[in-house]
Amino acid sequence: MNKSRKPYQLVSKEWQADDTILEVNGSHIGGSNFTLIAGPCAVENREQLGAIANYLSKKGVHFLRGGAFKPRTSPYSFQGLKEEGLKLLREVGDRNKLNIVTEVMGTETIDLVAEYADVLQVGTRNMQNYPLLKGLGKIDKPILLKRGMSCTVEEWLLAAEYIMVGGNPRVILCERGIRTFNKATRNTMDLGSMALVKTLTHLPVFADPSQGTGIRELVLPMTKAAIAAGADGAIVEVHNQPEEALSDGDQSLYFDQFDRLISACESYCQLEGKQFQISNPTSKTIQQN
Amino acid sequence: MNKSRKPYQLVSKEWQADDTILEVNGSHIGGSNFTLIAGPCAVENREQLGAIANYLSKKGVHFLRGGAFKPRTSPYSFQGLKEEGLKLLREVGDRNKLNIVTEVMGTETIDLVAEYADVLQVGTRNMQNYPLLKGLGKIDKPILLKRGMSCTVEEWLLAAEYIMVGGNPRVILCERGIRTFNKATRNTMDLGSMALVKTLTHLPVFADPSQGTGIRELVLPMTKAAIAAGADGAIVEVHNQPEEALSDGDQSLYFDQFDRLISACESYCQLEGKQFQISNPTSKTIQQN
Amino acid sequence: MNKSRKPYQLVSKEWQADDTILEVNGSHIGGSNFTLIAGPCAVENREQLGAIANYLSKKGVHFLRGGAFKPRTSPYSFQGLKEEGLKLLREVGDRNKLNIVTEVMGTETIDLVAEYADVLQVGTRNMQNYPLLKGLGKIDKPILLKRGMSCTVEEWLLAAEYIMVGGNPRVILCERGIRTFNKATRNTMDLGSMALVKTLTHLPVFADPSQGTGIRELVLPMTKAAIAAGADGAIVEVHNQPEEALSDGDQSLYFDQFDRLISACESYCQLEGKQFQISNPTSKTIQQN
Amino acid sequence: MNKSRKPYQLVSKEWQADDTILEVNGSHIGGSNFTLIAGPCAVENREQLGAIANYLSKKGVHFLRGGAFKPRTSPYSFQGLKEEGLKLLREVGDRNKLNIVTEVMGTETIDLVAEYADVLQVGTRNMQNYPLLKGLGKIDKPILLKRGMSCTVEEWLLAAEYIMVGGNPRVILCERGIRTFNKATRNTMDLGSMALVKTLTHLPVFADPSQGTGIRELVLPMTKAAIAAGADGAIVEVHNQPEEALSDGDQSLYFDQFDRLISACESYCQLEGKQFQISNPTSKTIQQN
Repeated sequence: MNKSRKPYQLVSKEWQADDTILEVNGSHIGGSNFTLIAGPCAVENREQLGAIANYLSKKGVHFLRGGAFKPRTSPYSFQGLKEEGLKLLREVGDRNKLNIVTEVMGTETIDLVAEYADVLQVGTRNMQNYPLLKGLGKIDKPILLKRGMSCTVEEWLLAAEYIMVGGNPRVILCERGIRTFNKATRNTMDLGSMALVKTLTHLPVFADPSQGTGIRELVLPMTKAAIAAGADGAIVEVHNQPEEALSDGDQSLYFDQFDRLISACESYCQLEGKQFQISNPTSKTIQQN
Repeated sequence: MNKSRKPYQLVSKEWQADDTILEVNGSHIGGSNFTLIAGPCAVENREQLGAIANYLSKKGVHFLRGGAFKPRTSPYSFQGLKEEGLKLLREVGDRNKLNIVTEVMGTETIDLVAEYADVLQVGTRNMQNYPLLKGLGKIDKPILLKRGMSCTVEEWLLAAEYIMVGGNPRVILCERGIRTFNKATRNTMDLGSMALVKTLTHLPVFADPSQGTGIRELVLPMTKAAIAAGADGAIVEVHNQPEEALSDGDQSLYFDQFDRLISACESYCQLEGKQFQISNPTSKTIQQN
Repeated sequence: MNKSRKPYQLVSKEWQADDTILEVNGSHIGGSNFTLIAGPCAVENREQLGAIANYLSKKGVHFLRGGAFKPRTSPYSFQGLKEEGLKLLREVGDRNKLNIVTEVMGTETIDLVAEYADVLQVGTRNMQNYPLLKGLGKIDKPILLKRGMSCTVEEWLLAAEYIMVGGNPRVILCERGIRTFNKATRNTMDLGSMALVKTLTHLPVFADPSQGTGIRELVLPMTKAAIAAGADGAIVEVHNQPEEALSDGDQSLYFDQFDRLISACESYCQLEGKQFQISNPTSKTIQQN
Repeated sequence: MNKSRKPYQLVSKEWQADDTILEVNGSHIGGSNFTLIAGPCAVENREQLGAIANYLSKKGVHFLRGGAFKPRTSPYSFQGLKEEGLKLLREVGDRNKLNIVTEVMGTETIDLVAEYADVLQVGTRNMQNYPLLKGLGKIDKPILLKRGMSCTVEEWLLAAEYIMVGGNPRVILCERGIRTFNKATRNTMDLGSMALVKTLTHLPVFADPSQGTGIRELVLPMTKAAIAAGADGAIVEVHNQPEEALSDGDQSLYFDQFDRLISACESYCQLEGKQFQISNPTSKTIQQN
């Protein structure tokens, strides 16, 4: 650690001045790009996932999210479709030309998840699961590392450092809200720390306004706020039937809300000088806004 | 409380559907307007205040902030110039055609502060100072009510309700960051709650990115984020010599940083369809952005 | 501040090595004494207060608490009986030989409250109400200073320093729970910080297990824990009819629960070598325990 | 979940009214017993561990703690001796007739750790590592489940439920401090929630005053406070040379401090009617106290 007195090294701007830009099947993450990852909280069945993927594909989105292994507070809650869910993600993703982003919960399933996914997500409860981070340092797929809900900025960067020092430089950080006394929103979205992290690291930094607020109506303003504060991307929950969702229905967007979100992303990216990674930008929307 | 089951009434959208728009000497706050309040943390002396006010006036800003009565954690810290500071604010404000926003710390100084100020600010430590809120309900000047650093959204709205039920309907809410485990920023700016409050009340809602982050470099991104999330205004600390400031120098902008902030506010207000309350908008800046 | 590099001085053990011991009408607070303050959350009427005071007096308690000026979150909630409540406290206190502890909410009522009370309480929302602290520095009655719900240990000690530097050395600190993400209890009682403060100051430090937990059943274990952690006293809510209380009924003890609390205090004080300030200790209880 | 409307079942008092009492090689945990687990933060080498174990054995302690797999915030920090550490723990434990308590960090090491340990500890960062909890549901050794630093009481009980529903009923809960705005202590020890949990579950509930405070001098008062609040045991860090410790030296007790801790535990257990699980109680100490 000769380059800085900070406790982390590989993740720092002192180590690497240029922004890390990840390329995933032709789509770019980081640098001057803005990337949207969207989809349901959990993979529920072929019909649900197909409907959502088809919609997202038409909209030009490049990344489909969906949980196959779900970390649930209660052992009695739906735990995800597991490998069947991964297969559905792959099948539906391939059909709709969508990259797959899905959560890996433990070392025992890294290989399995990596077989199906394009980007592996580490959930907030696992940000300091060090065997998992070490395991992910050995694979060659990008890792979306959610901030632990009570983790400091330094702990977050050191978690990324674990992955990088293990050999995998392709890490995306994702602020998803922290746990505070405030219960009016599900979590307290900490865009100030996100903006701070952007000054400290060359890695791409995303925001998760769905988990960050837990309230469907706040996803649009907080996605715009995230872009304004410097986010390189956002991960957003969308569902064909939010009121029927097996989990997190209250924070999942309806399709028409997602339409407006895409439109807003276009305008905000233009203002921020970001390339919105989307296949069919509707330039008309930009002028209208 | 017959109109809703919420614990507050007068502040709610159910009670008044239209946004409250305050008029202060020809400048407008709330509704489709975006208003910038700027100035030093504390009034230090005539030269300092004059230099800052002159700069802000040239930039077209309408509101000058500056503390004359300062709530300081330590009794050994500079406590403000008190009445002398109020007089300086008025003198400098009048000379530069700037409205004065300054803090009132207790019932015993309400009349004094109201004599000099155009908008009276209630600080975060006083949000639940109920005698003060009741006293402010009896005056006819607008109140800028900062959110208590550990107060819920409901408590915040009820503090405004105290002022309104007392007879003063001119209340501006201001999110200034909450206190959490996170110490990478001075406070945790809670834009999610700010966006939520916008859905609950007709009152104008401001953001304070200076107190919210405590870091000069984050004031610009978080001001932009606040506009994107729906803020009706921002209160920003700026100083002619931040490194010499008697308090909060680290979060005070240099003039050239404030130049860029104004430019960004113009662009973001345009995108959000907001009227930026500034005297000489630089439309060139907008196109360049 | 030549004696230490800490930001506070008069409150520190470096300034005064011996514990401050306050004498209130023959009862002692601080040093090797343990003092119980008990009574209802709010003064409701003569019958209620008389019944509670009569019970406490028989039990040998020396201090009666009860709010006449109540800081309520909502302007529509019962705000206390105000001066009428103070008169009732004095009348009932005198009749039962109980010292009166009651809250003062602002500078405008300091003289009034000081006329009737033996100890003036500063509530959690006012811990950083500096005009109030300065005003209390000028009177000659003890001040019970509750910790602000989101205040650090240093801020708490500096609030006491405000009172002491103003001229009033008779300050009692009181930990009453802090605001955290945890909502299973009303507040999170921070006995670790209380124990820490005992190592930093010569002032008496109390605990408030009623506000600290908000749950009647936890008042006994947390009062015992407070003594074990070094508390010099406790302030406990007790009511003749908790289920009818106008405020905080859920955390108010029934008389028979308070009986057991006194008994436990006796045992724990004996173990800790503390003199329990109570008129008629029941030594039998100690042996039975 | 037919027995209650609470989200957990097997851990609840409604499901099992009698306290769970675990037997570990003749020592008892839970019910009317109080059990002390002590040792260094990390196993460093044979000399260190031997010296500490020899001391604890002489004092009559039954359980030796020590980390072989260490979850460290930085990848550059000492990560523990791993299997070599486990072997040392077993060797030293057998020689000194001490049961071994050590942390398991992932599913891939459950069998390995279970081969050497008598009680497997789940650290605060893994409380919601569900694959790990499920894996521990399948072994037949007791699990010491630390509360997650930002986890609610309900989430904590549900984590225990994961282990129990998986088939392992031998779970010990351990409060170790939560993460709050307060940084005067390392964590905020939440004895109020610990006392609350005792009313909800039949499982033994421990306290960790070392992690809970991070300050050596506060370990004694907070251990006493934990017993007073109903703890069934405590896990305490002790080191032969705290100032040389590879981790957590500031919160590790010196031997003479631990002597006083044992003495205090004896007195407090006697007062609470608890059987202190220690081989050679020094009744003299009790009378002296």
